[in-house]
Amino acid sequence: MTTQTLEQIETRVSANLFDPAHHLTEAQIGRLIDLATRAPTAYNLQNWRFVAVRSDAEKARLKDLANGQQKVADAAVTFVVFGVLPDAATLGPRLRPSVDAEIMPGGMATTWVTAAGAQYADPRASRDEAVRSASFGAAMLMQAARAMGLASGPIGGFDAAGVAAAYAASGDEVPVVLVSVGRAAPGNWPQKPRRALGEVLEIA
Amino acid sequence: MTTQTLEQIETRVSANLFDPAHHLTEAQIGRLIDLATRAPTAYNLQNWRFVAVRSDAEKARLKDLANGQQKVADAAVTFVVFGVLPDAATLGPRLRPSVDAEIMPGGMATTWVTAAGAQYADPRASRDEAVRSASFGAAMLMQAARAMGLASGPIGGFDAAGVAAAYAASGDEVPVVLVSVGRAAPGNWPQKPRRALGEVLEIA
Repeated sequence: MTTQTLEQIETRVSANLFDPAHHLTEAQIGRLIDLATRAPTAYNLQNWRFVAVRSDAEKARLKDLANGQQKVADAAVTFVVFGVLPDAATLGPRLRPSVDAEIMPGGMATTWVTAAGAQYADPRASRDEAVRSASFGAAMLMQAARAMGLASGPIGGFDAAGVAAAYAASGDEVPVVLVSVGRAAPGNWPQKPRRALGEVLEIA
Repeated sequence: MTTQTLEQIETRVSANLFDPAHHLTEAQIGRLIDLATRAPTAYNLQNWRFVAVRSDAEKARLKDLANGQQKVADAAVTFVVFGVLPDAATLGPRLRPSVDAEIMPGGMATTWVTAAGAQYADPRASRDEAVRSASFGAAMLMQAARAMGLASGPIGGFDAAGVAAAYAASGDEVPVVLVSVGRAAPGNWPQKPRRALGEVLEIA
């Protein structure tokens, strides 16, 4: 039982108020995404892309696309997290380092490429996977921020088409969530109450 | 900088091999879901449902629905994580405890209900939110397992219609991912190599 991590889960909040005087270096931003991408993805697809918005001009543009939410202006960085529709053709190269490192056999990688091609032929399964991978990455990003002593706040309400256009998303990239990261300012809400366990859990 | 959590992120693996002699109590299962549901959801919708599959008979049924993956039989529990299509009508009651606790003003809750109704009128936005919330919950579940000294392994390849039927999903519940949790057996892979940071991160 590792109490530090448990305490971080139990006290996590979605911050809305950030210290506008706080900034992150490129090295810190890189470290956050290095950690975020330790999240799992199906077949190790790693079908995501992160844009770290931190210049004043880009923050102003993104704030406008996010219903004017002030935290985009105040937080050190707001990450745009894209999920990518899975493309089995990219999977071979993505698994190559695992084969080269003798973590997985080459024949298994070939089998996975075939399986992924079949699984994502259905457009809904493909989009679901883009959303799922990006959400796993965003969740790990929030955890990494907390571990680095930073606050985070996810944003689900934004102009998806506008964000896709602003950050040159290709047709197979889905903007899934924005995540503001920085130093919390005073006055954030505590964690909001949750539904009773009996409403959400069944043991079979 | 809280090094324990960082170390847990950097060494996390998706376990495939579990000790079949290891079991979890109902209290431990409840604790895992208590922690998982600390994950954020849009508007605090908490639009998720978890089924903890742990009896031999239920494991056998779920294994069949998950391409025969042995970890469903071996792990102490495999959680079926459902996302629920957002229903603005449920949001008022879900926010009531936050209003009663004076965390948020009542007027804000009313505004949120209206905003959620508009945002999820689009069926694709609604499904994306179900997948996103369930993925955030599953990610927090994996983190909670690690914090409790347990291993976890997500499963994305399964018979979604079969799983929905087996666990009596309503029409607005989407089975998003399965997560096996238990004690790791020897022989799991190390964390697989990730794409270079320059491929997945842009600073704007």
